[in-house]
Amino acid sequence: MPDDFERMWADLAPVGRSSASGGYFRQPFLSAEVELRAWFAEQAAARDLTLTTDPVGNMAAWWRPAGVSGPGVLTGSHLDSVLDGGAYDGPLGVVSALAAVDVLRARGFVPSRPLGVSVFVEEEGSRFGLACLGSRLASGALAWSDALALADRDGVSLESALDRSGLGGPSYEPWDLASTISCFVELHVEQGRDLVDRGAAVGVGSGIWPHGRYRFDFTGVADHAGTTRMEDRADPMLTYAMTALAANKQARLGGGRATFGRIDVAPNGTNAIPSRVSAWLDARCDSEAALSSLVEEVTRMATERAGRDGTALAVTAESVSPAVGFDPALAAALAADHEEGDWPVIPTAAGHDAGILSVAGVPTAMLFVRNPTGVSHSPDEHASTPDCLVGVSALADVLERLAR
Amino acid sequence: MPDDFERMWADLAPVGRSSASGGYFRQPFLSAEVELRAWFAEQAAARDLTLTTDPVGNMAAWWRPAGVSGPGVLTGSHLDSVLDGGAYDGPLGVVSALAAVDVLRARGFVPSRPLGVSVFVEEEGSRFGLACLGSRLASGALAWSDALALADRDGVSLESALDRSGLGGPSYEPWDLASTISCFVELHVEQGRDLVDRGAAVGVGSGIWPHGRYRFDFTGVADHAGTTRMEDRADPMLTYAMTALAANKQARLGGGRATFGRIDVAPNGTNAIPSRVSAWLDARCDSEAALSSLVEEVTRMATERAGRDGTALAVTAESVSPAVGFDPALAAALAADHEEGDWPVIPTAAGHDAGILSVAGVPTAMLFVRNPTGVSHSPDEHASTPDCLVGVSALADVLERLAR
Repeated sequence: MPDDFERMWADLAPVGRSSASGGYFRQPFLSAEVELRAWFAEQAAARDLTLTTDPVGNMAAWWRPAGVSGPGVLTGSHLDSVLDGGAYDGPLGVVSALAAVDVLRARGFVPSRPLGVSVFVEEEGSRFGLACLGSRLASGALAWSDALALADRDGVSLESALDRSGLGGPSYEPWDLASTISCFVELHVEQGRDLVDRGAAVGVGSGIWPHGRYRFDFTGVADHAGTTRMEDRADPMLTYAMTALAANKQARLGGGRATFGRIDVAPNGTNAIPSRVSAWLDARCDSEAALSSLVEEVTRMATERAGRDGTALAVTAESVSPAVGFDPALAAALAADHEEGDWPVIPTAAGHDAGILSVAGVPTAMLFVRNPTGVSHSPDEHASTPDCLVGVSALADVLERLAR
Repeated sequence: MPDDFERMWADLAPVGRSSASGGYFRQPFLSAEVELRAWFAEQAAARDLTLTTDPVGNMAAWWRPAGVSGPGVLTGSHLDSVLDGGAYDGPLGVVSALAAVDVLRARGFVPSRPLGVSVFVEEEGSRFGLACLGSRLASGALAWSDALALADRDGVSLESALDRSGLGGPSYEPWDLASTISCFVELHVEQGRDLVDRGAAVGVGSGIWPHGRYRFDFTGVADHAGTTRMEDRADPMLTYAMTALAANKQARLGGGRATFGRIDVAPNGTNAIPSRVSAWLDARCDSEAALSSLVEEVTRMATERAGRDGTALAVTAESVSPAVGFDPALAAALAADHEEGDWPVIPTAAGHDAGILSVAGVPTAMLFVRNPTGVSHSPDEHASTPDCLVGVSALADVLERLAR
């Protein structure tokens, strides 16, 4: 069984990896992600799983022994990455799910419910800006017409990207969750050091912090960087700079998280005062009230500064995800469901497809695998192979219990 | 004569103009600039001027009546623009030079020295990052091997760009300035409101402030924007943001100019703390000592903040131009050289090819044409046609005197 996991892991290692940084670029419908999807289809075929692909490219590979029907147990994750991301975020859940199927078969287990391995599209939102795009469509949280209108940084619409990939179509039917999925389990590398501190290889998710992405468009007046007197300027870079510092400070004060990691400047020339600075705030807090308060305070401070700089500010909430509490009974059962003692139950501030399905009413659980440095969304993201294999075993155990 | 100017101006209006912003994108060796160069060659041919083009694409169109030889009077400017720039910065000097030749011929004037109209390449440095690239090479201030190694944002080297344009070659001989050019006059739209305040259509340049471009590379640790505790971060965006505010404040305090108008973030994802923020400081002061002091103070403050943020900073001076004083006798003669009274003599904080030639020992002068708003490096850059025609006339007058 370890062989299966390690062989699959080796398959994926080179796909979309930057030779410069060692990080991954696996944006949806571009070459690396297309290669990963083809690889997943091969893995499904090699295991005699029945593959379904929906119009946005979400895939599910089903193990349905003869005579078995009704709502199934679904497990899986995603194959896309952030820009220059790590190897584990997403693929670890998919590879572990396939490896868990192998473990169950080696045990001679035959499920009495359908057991599916899923890959949801654009979980990171790194191309079209909306995280969990695939699971939002599948669960009915996002309308097809709204999704098709999304565009990437080069102006390519999702509709066009799907069309080039042989996907898409005039309409999209959300998955019939009630009659096809009884529960969803997502295994994921931990994005923090909770499990390191607790000395556990695996943990169980209690829930997801509410979080959102907000685009701040600061506009000013383009002018010559050399000849324009400082007092005659309306420079949106200054308003942005103060806002980035304010967001950091407010998050520290309130115990939340606030990050400006993406910025787009026009015209972005060395000797030109910008006409526009667009920057994206990623904000997360342990309650929805705290999140609203954080974003409101940052917006208030930015607006006040814009008044002094002679610039203007527009804030657009591109996506806001409510707090998610995973199924408590399922989490408690998972935590106690193994030989090594209780797994710790921990919250996360990262969004996941599991959160979307949970909000849609699917009983949902997450398993986390220890990450020695806690670093993720970075080439340094890591999990040891022994820990990954404990994760596969834990996932197989829970799937066996759920599909028994 | 007005017809000639306006006809040429109309020729150039659509070339490289963005329909979205109304601004110009005329980067060297890309389609709009190639079209402008072809247009210039046509204009030279239509006037029976002898066109020379050097290996980097600098052009000069010479009026050399029979029997006239020796060092010539050169006038002209550039045809490239900043990203999303205005119509006047550069092209106004080229069009006015050609129109001045037409004025002189209509007056029946025959020069007794060669009279040339020049176009220097990549004056703005908007593609390869080094302002006045063409004139630096022509004057011997830049080595060919150093120039060829420059690369644009997409990694295309100057060598490769030249090769694709049918230019370039193994070596470059700087222009023999002493035996070919007796003096250089550049007409340019004013990049400020000095002439508006003084109520003059035209002014004469006294000199150029020392200025430079400095790349600030802030490096930190990429990580997940949601799961990484604020206190565990090494976020280079914060160090950058403080630096941008500090540069602005220091420039205000010292009466200089400091701008961060260009930024490049890696990986530039909404949910990833950046691993690197590169930002370019454009700094200018009225003395070289003040410029050094400004850049040192900003660097010191940035380094101090990097220490607190757990990030690192490297500063690279990409180009530094010394103070330029134009030929005082020439400036005084120009200022008094017309019917309407004395033109004001004014300094500028903008770099020009005229500054490069002046440093190389060529007696050099600049004429500025009033700009109603003072805005430049922006689609809003403007000069009225009557003012432009006063500029053409002033340029014709000075050329007549210099080439008599």
